[in-house]
Parts: sequence; C-alpha cells; structure tokens
Amino acid sequence: MSTPEKFTGYACTDHAKWSDLTKLSYPPKKFDDYDVDIKINCCGVCGSDVHTVVNDWGKKSNLPLVVGHEIVGTVTAVGPKVTLAKVGDIVGVGAQARSCLKCKNCLEGEETYCSEDLIHTFGSVYPESGETSQGGYANYVRIHEFFTFPISQKLFEKGYKPEDIASFFCGGLTTYAPLIDNGCGPGKKVGIIGIGGLGHFAIQIAKALGAEVYVFSRTDSKKEDALKLGADHYFATSEENWNKPIEFELDMILSTANSGKGFDLNAYLRCLKINGKFISVGLPAEAFSVSPRTFFSNKCSFSASHLGNRKQMLELLKLVEEKNIKAWIEPVEISAAGCKEVLERLHNNDVKYRFVLTGYEKEFANDN
Amino acid sequence: MSTPEKFTGYACTDHAKWSDLTKLSYPPKKFDDYDVDIKINCCGVCGSDVHTVVNDWGKKSNLPLVVGHEIVGTVTAVGPKVTLAKVGDIVGVGAQARSCLKCKNCLEGEETYCSEDLIHTFGSVYPESGETSQGGYANYVRIHEFFTFPISQKLFEKGYKPEDIASFFCGGLTTYAPLIDNGCGPGKKVGIIGIGGLGHFAIQIAKALGAEVYVFSRTDSKKEDALKLGADHYFATSEENWNKPIEFELDMILSTANSGKGFDLNAYLRCLKINGKFISVGLPAEAFSVSPRTFFSNKCSFSASHLGNRKQMLELLKLVEEKNIKAWIEPVEISAAGCKEVLERLHNNDVKYRFVLTGYEKEFANDN
Repeated sequence: MSTPEKFTGYACTDHAKWSDLTKLSYPPKKFDDYDVDIKINCCGVCGSDVHTVVNDWGKKSNLPLVVGHEIVGTVTAVGPKVTLAKVGDIVGVGAQARSCLKCKNCLEGEETYCSEDLIHTFGSVYPESGETSQGGYANYVRIHEFFTFPISQKLFEKGYKPEDIASFFCGGLTTYAPLIDNGCGPGKKVGIIGIGGLGHFAIQIAKALGAEVYVFSRTDSKKEDALKLGADHYFATSEENWNKPIEFELDMILSTANSGKGFDLNAYLRCLKINGKFISVGLPAEAFSVSPRTFFSNKCSFSASHLGNRKQMLELLKLVEEKNIKAWIEPVEISAAGCKEVLERLHNNDVKYRFVLTGYEKEFANDN
Repeated sequence: MSTPEKFTGYACTDHAKWSDLTKLSYPPKKFDDYDVDIKINCCGVCGSDVHTVVNDWGKKSNLPLVVGHEIVGTVTAVGPKVTLAKVGDIVGVGAQARSCLKCKNCLEGEETYCSEDLIHTFGSVYPESGETSQGGYANYVRIHEFFTFPISQKLFEKGYKPEDIASFFCGGLTTYAPLIDNGCGPGKKVGIIGIGGLGHFAIQIAKALGAEVYVFSRTDSKKEDALKLGADHYFATSEENWNKPIEFELDMILSTANSGKGFDLNAYLRCLKINGKFISVGLPAEAFSVSPRTFFSNKCSFSASHLGNRKQMLELLKLVEEKNIKAWIEPVEISAAGCKEVLERLHNNDVKYRFVLTGYEKEFANDN
C-alpha cells in the first residue's frame, strides 16, 4: 500500500457556485515525521462543509478547497516518528488535523483549543509552508497521527460499516464532549435542542450516558424520531407556554440549533436549574442578543463547545460499541452530482439525519 | 422602642423628575409574623436606585416609591414568630425583603432566586395585599427576618461606623457571591472589570480571598486606586492589544460594567482559560451581542449573578472584619437636596465609590 504523489478530490473553486464542486488533483501538504496518509473509504457531510463553501461565516478560505472532515479510511503511509497508527489500520479522522501538543491548552488535554498551531482538517494554512489543508471529499488525506483514531474491529463485527461510523468523528464528538464536560450522567436532566445531524447524536448519547432526556423541536413533526432515539420528554416549542412545566428543572441544555433567527434563548434559560448550563454546539451565523439580566433568574450560564479531544473521541467509540449508538445516515455516492446533492439538500435541512459520501473506491479507481 | 404607624421617606413620584424626591408619609406593609421593623440609621445608594427612578430597565414601578436597599438600623419590633432578630439589635438589610423559603431554589439555599415569592426591598408588590415594598430612603423599613443580618459588635469596636457597613449589604454581597460561587481563592487568577461602586468591593474581596487580581478599566485614571484596593495587575483597555499578554490566563472575570456600549466582550473572553467563566454583575440596559462562535476559542461561559444568599452575607461580614475590607464612601445627609445630589452624581458616575445617606436621626426627628 502506498500514497500517490497527488491527491484527487472534489473542490470548491468559487463561492458563488458553491454546490458545483470540481474534480481536480493537488499536491498534498509536505509529508512530516508525524503525518499519516489515509486512503479514504467514505466521508460524512457536516454543516461546516456547507458554511465553508457558501462562505457565510465571514472567514475567508483559500480556493480551490476540498471540504469534508468525517473520514474513515485505511492508513497507507506513516511518518518516521508515528507511533499511534500503522499501515493497514482502519482509522477515523474528524475536524482537526494538527495541534502543537505543547501549549498550555494542549498539555491540559484540550488540544481542540490549541492556541499555537490549530490546523483544521480543511481550510487551514500550515504556517511553515503556506499550504492549505484539504479534506475528505478526496481519495486521500494527510493528517497528524494524534488526530487519527483507531476503529476497533469489534465495531465491524457488530455489523457497523465504515459509513455508519464516519459521522461520529465530528457530529458525534461535537455532542459527546460538552455532555461529558458538563456532567451528563445518571440523575441528570438534560435538554437537547434540535433533532438533526447533531441533535440525533446528542439524544442517543445523553441517553446512553444515563441522563433523563428532554428534547425540543419547533413542531411535533420529529416527535416519533425523538422517542425512537431515546427522548424521555418531547416539547414542541411553537406551542404557547411550552416551557412552563419545566421551569428551573434542567441541569443542562445542549443546543444544536443552527440558526439564531427566532430563537428564544430566554425561554430555554428559564428551564435551567440554578447554575444550570446552556451550551451551544450549533453554529448560527447570527449572534444571540444576551442581556445579563436574562441570567438573573437562575445564575445559569451560556457557553459553546466545538469538537472534543482525543481522549473523548476514543471514549465515544467505546460507548458507541457498548450502547449500539447509530448514526442515522443517507449514503450518497461521491461524484460532482453527488456532492451537489448533499450540499444543496443539507443547506435546505433536507436529510434525516446525516449524509455520508461513499463509493470512493470506484470513483477514484484511476486516481490512485 | 416602637414603630410608628406611618413611615416617612423620600419618594419618587414622577420618573420625568427622577431626581426630585418628595418627602411623604405612607403606611408600611401589614405586619406579619416573621416581620422585623427597623429604625434606619443610614442607607447606601446603589445603581439600582438610579435605574429605578430613571426607569430605564423597562420595569414599571408603582409610584410613589421609596428606593434604597443598603440599610443599617436598629430593630424596633419583631413579629411573634421571629427568632433571627430581637428589639435593639443592630442589623443590616440588602436588596431582598422576602422569599417563600419553601420552593426548590430556597431549599437549596438559593433564596435570592426564589421562584415563588421574591420580594425586593423596594418596588415589589406583596401578592397577598397589593402593597408595594418601600426602601431605605426613609425612617423605617419592614423586612422578613431572614433578610435582616446581625452586625457584630466587633465591627464597631474596630472603628467601623454604620455608614461604613451599609454598602456591603448590596454592593459587597453582589460581588462576594459570584466570586465564592465560582471558586475564587488562592491560586486563582481573577479579573475584575470596572472600578466603581461594585468593582472597588470586588477587588478587595478577591484579594482577601487569596486570588491574584487583574483589574481592567478604560484608562489609567483609576490605576492608583486599583493598586491601593489590592490589584496585582492593571490594564487600561483603551490601549491597543491590551489583552495580548494575558490570553488564556484567567480563571474568572467578574464584570461590574454598567454599560454595554462599546464593551468588547470578545476581548475579555479571550483572556479566559479553557472553561473560564465570565460573570456579569453590572446591569447594563443594553444587551450584549453574543455569537456562539465567540466562545469557541476556549469553551468559556457567560453568566450573571445578582445579590447573594444569607449564608454568603454572614460570611462576608466575617471576612470584612477579619481582612479589614473598607467601603470607600462619601456620606451625604438625607434631605430632598441630598437625595437629588446622590442620584444625579451617581447617574453621572461621579462618586468614589459609593454614597451613603446619613443624618437620619436629625432629618426624621419629628416623624417617629
């Protein structure tokens, strides 16, 4: 097994035509001592992919850019100092490609918040070379070993396929980390806002961790799904006074809402116990308007979280295996048309609940 | 010692003429089993007094209204079930006059956040009678015993006068409670924003609790005061890149800023460690604009806190005694002119750092 000199993928070349990705070849970043090359088997489609190609976060990206950061694949080469992966391993990759592993945050096990050298799987610039990191809508990816995660053979033995696992590396971890960080477990009442690519993981994970799970969605349309996923209570927030029965009840609310428009933060904060926590993992382009006085009824706090650390990712894979947590996915074969479909449909919230691009072997048969 | 049938105080009768208080007599609330009557010796002037008479919080008050909730006085009568105070005691009163003491929040010792029967010292309506609570710019006040706090004779022996103690019952407690709630103590790096009626307490209290204290103010004009109060580090936030040296450094920031205008929340959040806490005790009329992505660099949290509980108030009085914490006050004799002066000057931030209305004995000599 070896790595080709050039990688081939579907790239955004123009934000004005954000769903029209172009197949092209590009040199990977320089191969470093701790780098791992991975031949990609499949890649989940994350909301960040859409925000990046649409360019609505106001964060300039170098184009062309290959997005995608929920990767499962096989290791084809490792740098001379790599100890965490070996050729032939089946591994996952999430939204992070490198950190310094030396700064205060990294040393505290918070490498997701590295202050010195945080490289995202796609769209970051490697400071030493000016190269842009390229993601998983491609045949190969090159990643620092610390951000590759071994997938246990047991998961495959339980019937999981690579495309069933890919979405956990960003979507799953993004919800697992703040739940764990904030004490989700038996005896805790945990609210989850939104049932979608993130929310459907959050419900299952909160339940698997032993919490009593309260799910919030605008209407009753996803109630059946929420209950299947493990919700103990369901609230349609378009109903008047929906929060009255649970004022001061919840220990924590995890919001996966992806839009700030019409979002009544105050109504949710009112559901929290004294010192309760509201954590956003959604990425609305709009800011919330927050008055300190909003928090005066219960000293609750507002926070946000992104991704999670290596330790948490490895724990999550064990939890998935033990509790049989399932990504609800729709597989779509990778191609220009396939990429267009998943980006446009995800932009329209038209997926239950996560796309995974598959068929890499066939699509890139002549590019390896 | 006894209580007169009517109380006499300086009342706001018209928000349009908010600094022109009118001396008038009014019947106190009905005397209940747990009520304590207090002959007032002096009363601190809090920002809430100004917000209430100016009426910029959008919270309608019944007028006429006597404000003031940093009271020291002598108990003149107690209800038949009172056990926490007796006639002749010298006690303090803060911003709260009653809570149910039975709801979940009260039973957890969080009576400041009572969800059933929270009565503020002024401006609340007693649900059983429709009476409005009246505050401390008056000769007497009637308060539930739980919200009266005994003042140790030792404090007076150390040279404290009533007017040196009054401001602790709201201003002091408001900063003490969130510092304690969030782990302020030895080994912790604690930021305080603003040096004023609240900030000058926060600096002293954080220092008395053993923290390393970082103080933030727009310019250098209050640097000398900050250092006298116990600041270990001082930052003028009008200087460019003021926060660079302390990115990811602080465990907690307590903001006493009273205005949201031009407030760069993001620059402060950037100073917090991973999982650091930003707590606002200031009461800006404007909301902050908060993007979840603002919090993504360090998982920090935003929260607010108001006042504190009985346990904390009693602890604070001990700390004041042990560590010799001083309110920096400007005493002004109570009268129509005196009330006008303190309200207008506080509205213009023209005080270092807290007014206390004094001379009650003389002013109300014929009203008892």
